[in-house]
Amino acid sequence: MPTDFPTTVDDRYFEDYLAGHVHQFGSVTVSEAEIVEFARRYDPQPFHVDPEAARQTQFGGLIASGWHTAGLMMRMVVDHYLSHVASLASPGLDELRWTQPVRPGDTLSVRATVLETRPSASKSDRGLVRTLFEVEAA
Amino acid sequence: MPTDFPTTVDDRYFEDYLAGHVHQFGSVTVSEAEIVEFARRYDPQPFHVDPEAARQTQFGGLIASGWHTAGLMMRMVVDHYLSHVASLASPGLDELRWTQPVRPGDTLSVRATVLETRPSASKSDRGLVRTLFEVEAA
Repeated sequence: MPTDFPTTVDDRYFEDYLAGHVHQFGSVTVSEAEIVEFARRYDPQPFHVDPEAARQTQFGGLIASGWHTAGLMMRMVVDHYLSHVASLASPGLDELRWTQPVRPGDTLSVRATVLETRPSASKSDRGLVRTLFEVEAA
Repeated sequence: MPTDFPTTVDDRYFEDYLAGHVHQFGSVTVSEAEIVEFARRYDPQPFHVDPEAARQTQFGGLIASGWHTAGLMMRMVVDHYLSHVASLASPGLDELRWTQPVRPGDTLSVRATVLETRPSASKSDRGLVRTLFEVEAA
């Protein structure tokens, strides 16, 4: 399966997303400082903000908030996958699973599988793209 | 339906979550500066980072990243709903929907409905609590 779009994000439209195609992109390394900074503000559970307390938990050390991982994923999706000229936003997700802890120093990338594309029934100038995003550690 | 737990987050256990109970809590007002700061890092789409460009979109102005709204929700959930002594973390969400845009100056709170509680089949010292979280604007 191809992993590259024929077009850049600045020249990408509904027709460029093809069901079954797989795209791999992005690379971000997350630091302990960023994990703690994000979690202090949005998810201050001990295993996200306190390396010492985290060692006593089932995780054995500091892990990123699942919402932080989602944010890191979204940044890669915005930079590499979404059209910068035609994307209208998303109504949500059908499922979100945190399967493995993300730890300081981990490098993440994204694997996007286009599941379905569907022209809008009510508006002829737009369509819906359903995508499976998987965050992978290098 | 009661909206308060009989116990504080520092003395709350699996048995204190009761299916059918509804809990309302939290209050956070989100500023334009915070919306832009979050989105610059994690979701730099025009309608999240650029008030001028956002006016030309279907939203008519700046709106928060859905991931930012999720983070604001999580902070209220950590502060008021999750046990600070017994919570073990979450495997994910069955569904996530962004139904209304969040705009600068909006004040948000959370309505949590306990959908189901289930003792673990394999580990007798723990259980699973399934919750519907709704973010409401004041």
